[in-house]
Amino acid sequence: MTTEFEFDRDTALEPAGDGSFTAVVSDRWNTLVGPDGGYVLAIATRALQHTLRLPDPLVTSAHFVRPVQPGDVSITTETIKLGRRHATGTARLSQDGKPRLIATATFCDLSATHGGELSLAAPPDLPAPEDALNPMDAMDTSAASIAERVDYRLGRLPGWVRGAPSGDPSIELWMRFTDGRPPDPLGLLFLVDAAPPAVLEIGELGSSTVEITVHVRARPAPGWLACRLQTKHLTGGYHEEDMDIWDCEGILVAQSRQLALLA
Amino acid sequence: MTTEFEFDRDTALEPAGDGSFTAVVSDRWNTLVGPDGGYVLAIATRALQHTLRLPDPLVTSAHFVRPVQPGDVSITTETIKLGRRHATGTARLSQDGKPRLIATATFCDLSATHGGELSLAAPPDLPAPEDALNPMDAMDTSAASIAERVDYRLGRLPGWVRGAPSGDPSIELWMRFTDGRPPDPLGLLFLVDAAPPAVLEIGELGSSTVEITVHVRARPAPGWLACRLQTKHLTGGYHEEDMDIWDCEGILVAQSRQLALLA
Repeated sequence: MTTEFEFDRDTALEPAGDGSFTAVVSDRWNTLVGPDGGYVLAIATRALQHTLRLPDPLVTSAHFVRPVQPGDVSITTETIKLGRRHATGTARLSQDGKPRLIATATFCDLSATHGGELSLAAPPDLPAPEDALNPMDAMDTSAASIAERVDYRLGRLPGWVRGAPSGDPSIELWMRFTDGRPPDPLGLLFLVDAAPPAVLEIGELGSSTVEITVHVRARPAPGWLACRLQTKHLTGGYHEEDMDIWDCEGILVAQSRQLALLA
Repeated sequence: MTTEFEFDRDTALEPAGDGSFTAVVSDRWNTLVGPDGGYVLAIATRALQHTLRLPDPLVTSAHFVRPVQPGDVSITTETIKLGRRHATGTARLSQDGKPRLIATATFCDLSATHGGELSLAAPPDLPAPEDALNPMDAMDTSAASIAERVDYRLGRLPGWVRGAPSGDPSIELWMRFTDGRPPDPLGLLFLVDAAPPAVLEIGELGSSTVEITVHVRARPAPGWLACRLQTKHLTGGYHEEDMDIWDCEGILVAQSRQLALLA
């Protein structure tokens, strides 16, 4: 375990016996409404990584039942099955004695996978990161500390940044940790939820996650991640939001889908 | 509770106290390799419907940890949070004392939702069901009892049916229960997993679900369901499979995504 990087330090766990842990949710990964959901999910999943005996969170599904505030949390994990190929367990993250997040994850060893390869969707068509726009240059991000921890680069600025939502709730962007931390499966669990919601482009003000499921398909190469975020269906205030992430070598490394409710 | 239809009879639960239930997994919903995963998921989710106090499984995520055989199963449910808008709980389905499936679901009342509507993906472009092809006319389905319980209709037969996979792992089709049972949210949890896997079109022989998450977006109108199934990424033997379902009035009623491993 490295503590060289902020994300590792801010997801650190203190074992409390019997598959339980305590952690401190930092205020350094805040969106406008509190700690980023993906950041909290990474803490819970890291606890499962300790409990289960395989390294990579292949698929993690989490239901957010109450908001989390910066401060102390406890995580209890339970093993459902330990197999040779897959290990599955649940993590419940609580604050002030109340459950906030329940996550179930199936771990594997992504370095040991083998089988067919096929890709029918191309990575985002983005300019090189050094030629792309930094949206933070055009925004006041002082109320969202996450913007100091993640670098974003885009081919064109989203309409909502200029107060003119385009009507198309999709976005393509580069992301990376600002402090140089290389992406890894645990980092992907955060980064799939680290971009502003796509529904800002249809004039909505925000959205809260009910459930998110994250598939980690490969360990990413060090460098920028090319990300595509989109929403296609809004019904009764609920919408899905899909994030696909490729590494800088063009390999699909993660897919996430969340069900969220407009603010 | 109606027992008029086979699906209701074959997902019936016997309360066993303390949020626990017993059920009998029927052999009437078998794919070539055993009981359909969506059918087993519907049993577990029906148990949660008893335990939680809201009617509709808005979002259900389930990890399949061991195969289920036809026969007796037990389901233990646990309430995570009961809220006014959302209620969340977990269900663990076991057979012979071993966990087979762990599901977490957040329920709501879909008749009480309100908010914006947007649809950026059109329903499948299918001929009317009465003008479409029944793939079962071209197949020996005697080994898969599910084919007697679900009607399928397609605009064109998949290549794999003729022994000539097209190379495009996507399919559009109509589905309904053969006995006239109207679709409902619980039925959708089964139907999202009731079509042959899209990867048959790339020459694969089958696939087993590691995890599936199902969003139910609306209560479907009675009638046929228009379904789109597709896989875009296969990496190291793992692939996602997305199913989107619209009702006969053109309303999106369900989206599912699973992570599966090639057989």
